[in-house]
Amino acid sequence: MLLIRNAELDGRKVDLKIEHGRFAAVEPAGIHREWRAAREIDASGKAVTPAFYNTHTHAAMTLMRGYADDLELMDWLSNHIWPLEAKLTEEDVYLGTRLAILEMIRSGTVFFDDMYWFQRGTLRAVREMGVRACLGLLFIEGEDGKVLERNLRSNAEVLEAVGQDPLVSIALAPHAIYTVSETTLRLVREESEKNGSRVHIHLAETRAEAEECRRKHRCSPVAYLDKLGLVNEKLIAAHCVALDDDDLALMSRKRAVLAHMPCSNLKLGSGMFRFHDALRAGCRVTVGTDGASSNNNLSMLDEMKFAALVGKHRCGSVTGVTAKEVFHAATAAGAEAFGIAAGRIAVGMEADCILWDLHHPALLGFDLISNLVYAADPSVVDTVVCAGRVLMENHRVPGEAEIVAAARERIERLQQLIGE
Amino acid sequence: MLLIRNAELDGRKVDLKIEHGRFAAVEPAGIHREWRAAREIDASGKAVTPAFYNTHTHAAMTLMRGYADDLELMDWLSNHIWPLEAKLTEEDVYLGTRLAILEMIRSGTVFFDDMYWFQRGTLRAVREMGVRACLGLLFIEGEDGKVLERNLRSNAEVLEAVGQDPLVSIALAPHAIYTVSETTLRLVREESEKNGSRVHIHLAETRAEAEECRRKHRCSPVAYLDKLGLVNEKLIAAHCVALDDDDLALMSRKRAVLAHMPCSNLKLGSGMFRFHDALRAGCRVTVGTDGASSNNNLSMLDEMKFAALVGKHRCGSVTGVTAKEVFHAATAAGAEAFGIAAGRIAVGMEADCILWDLHHPALLGFDLISNLVYAADPSVVDTVVCAGRVLMENHRVPGEAEIVAAARERIERLQQLIGE
Repeated sequence: MLLIRNAELDGRKVDLKIEHGRFAAVEPAGIHREWRAAREIDASGKAVTPAFYNTHTHAAMTLMRGYADDLELMDWLSNHIWPLEAKLTEEDVYLGTRLAILEMIRSGTVFFDDMYWFQRGTLRAVREMGVRACLGLLFIEGEDGKVLERNLRSNAEVLEAVGQDPLVSIALAPHAIYTVSETTLRLVREESEKNGSRVHIHLAETRAEAEECRRKHRCSPVAYLDKLGLVNEKLIAAHCVALDDDDLALMSRKRAVLAHMPCSNLKLGSGMFRFHDALRAGCRVTVGTDGASSNNNLSMLDEMKFAALVGKHRCGSVTGVTAKEVFHAATAAGAEAFGIAAGRIAVGMEADCILWDLHHPALLGFDLISNLVYAADPSVVDTVVCAGRVLMENHRVPGEAEIVAAARERIERLQQLIGE
Repeated sequence: MLLIRNAELDGRKVDLKIEHGRFAAVEPAGIHREWRAAREIDASGKAVTPAFYNTHTHAAMTLMRGYADDLELMDWLSNHIWPLEAKLTEEDVYLGTRLAILEMIRSGTVFFDDMYWFQRGTLRAVREMGVRACLGLLFIEGEDGKVLERNLRSNAEVLEAVGQDPLVSIALAPHAIYTVSETTLRLVREESEKNGSRVHIHLAETRAEAEECRRKHRCSPVAYLDKLGLVNEKLIAAHCVALDDDDLALMSRKRAVLAHMPCSNLKLGSGMFRFHDALRAGCRVTVGTDGASSNNNLSMLDEMKFAALVGKHRCGSVTGVTAKEVFHAATAAGAEAFGIAAGRIAVGMEADCILWDLHHPALLGFDLISNLVYAADPSVVDTVVCAGRVLMENHRVPGEAEIVAAARERIERLQQLIGE
């Protein structure tokens, strides 16, 4: 059991009782002095809000942060990222993911939806650090039209390792419609129907992808996936930059989830997501960070500011995307997309939350949500709780120094391998 | 005298000797063990770079952070910001500016170019906190076509108070071409010619301003100012969103300074600055944050990330604006614009610098400048030195708690005054 006392929640002071990973009571502060718990946090001067749910990333790519930035996409991928990735080991993925999770916890994120390989390494890091995750079974096809051997091996390994875990789910993750054939996508659909798995895919990330799809399949990427039966409430579609009105309407009608990554979309030159239009169409819009190579951090705070400001520009109206809409997308909508009963601080909900330091200069001002979206940086996050477990308290994550040192040593090894 | 030992500078380890506010020696680490100083900082595990120069802000507006966000510009100004500003006192400006400077120091900024009134309050905060500043003598005309009485009074007060100060300069700050008449602008030019003052103005901030100028004066805002003799190396032109190629060429030829505020431009719906084109035209591009009401923080780190990512989008090329170009604009170019001999860590330069915590997760990776622009947040800033004086060490600014408490109390007073 965990008690959080004197936290500000929507302008009132509350005490929170957390049992079995859920909020068991949310009461006005001070009226239950008899409550006792093994751990008690005094949240005086702190506000409590839901935590962040990062709906698309490649966590282990923290090891490649800042590598070969500011290059054209294909130059960056073919001449730098892919050759480096070919040298990664499961241990690298474990250590890079630990660093990623450390960074995520420090910025208030308790869940991430991951797409990478050596997922057993990812799983190990997730379990050690106590966050939630959805791990994708990755499918990319080689030039022979077959799913890569290393995908199949890594997928089998993580499936064997994961078993039943209340904090970890497994998705099917075909990389994209241009790297996976129709045959494989149909198999993915069958598998998803059989066991109810989510399907996580890069979709309509660039105009080039949409144009190629129209040439090849005579329809948009969304319509193509729909023909294959994959546009439904289990779909997590990352990027969704090149969507037309019909695509938005279809995604809305079928209750598919859109994962929005404004920083990555700008950094890689993919364009601007139609946030305002997607909300108006009734879409389930969530927020992700993408990997650290194309962002270059994993802070949902950065992502929210970009989502709001770029969203306003994209729709041509400063009222078109608001701080509250973005905050909802980054919190409650993300949780909902993955079936996690969280996103509100209320009895019965999963006990995921952030305590924010109200004495931080960036949080002085008129409106908490506005300040979190437009002004906050990770140093404003004081304490992070996931499923009732305290992952960070007073800005400290246990084991931080060792995690950083081990990742630093790995990065130096990679630099030597590629002769940088 | 101040010694900084074992700092990483462009990949080498150096010891820095600082005397009389300047770098007196920059030597390989460890070879001058005989150096002695009253204060010595061990910068092991830290990188040293130039500090940030914020070339356009309204510092005291930290008191209005998050007030009435996500509204249309004129609704926001007329119904919220202006009525609130009418209630401000010199003490408010002093306390709000202290909070602003605290936030700036924490994010590595040692100089700001300010435009506001009650500048004596600003000056008091600047001197107490030890940063550099350029304070504008503000000119806004009322409906009677005369410069506001409160401007004239505040301007006279700060002029009397400032005297000779090596860290503080005074600029002439006509608010904008639509709030100040040609007559006043001509007087500003005469005054600038007489005493060499810089001229700080909002210029071509929106398309509406440019269109109105064309209707009224048959030319662009830049061409209009040029006719009045104000486009020269003393001009600090804030925003510059609505510039055409001729404007860029003129600004370049006359060596005028452009202050770029990407967050504010997006948040207020002003549009996107042509960063790539401005650099290609040879313009002196610098970076500012604008006030906290339209940003909503004063972090040059946020501003750099937006400048780079939005700059890429604006020019349609991911290589069109690079991390190194943005970092230069936010550091050396800003210093140069205000005649401050800084922006490089080298003997004879003003001793302004930042020590960055290389053990922070966001700085692990391949390229320091890339990580500072794309991945860093203020928690990465460890130590800040301005004119040889240590303003922050180990993430701590002296007097922080009192500054925050006093500002918080003022914000609550303002909230009561407006009945929020």
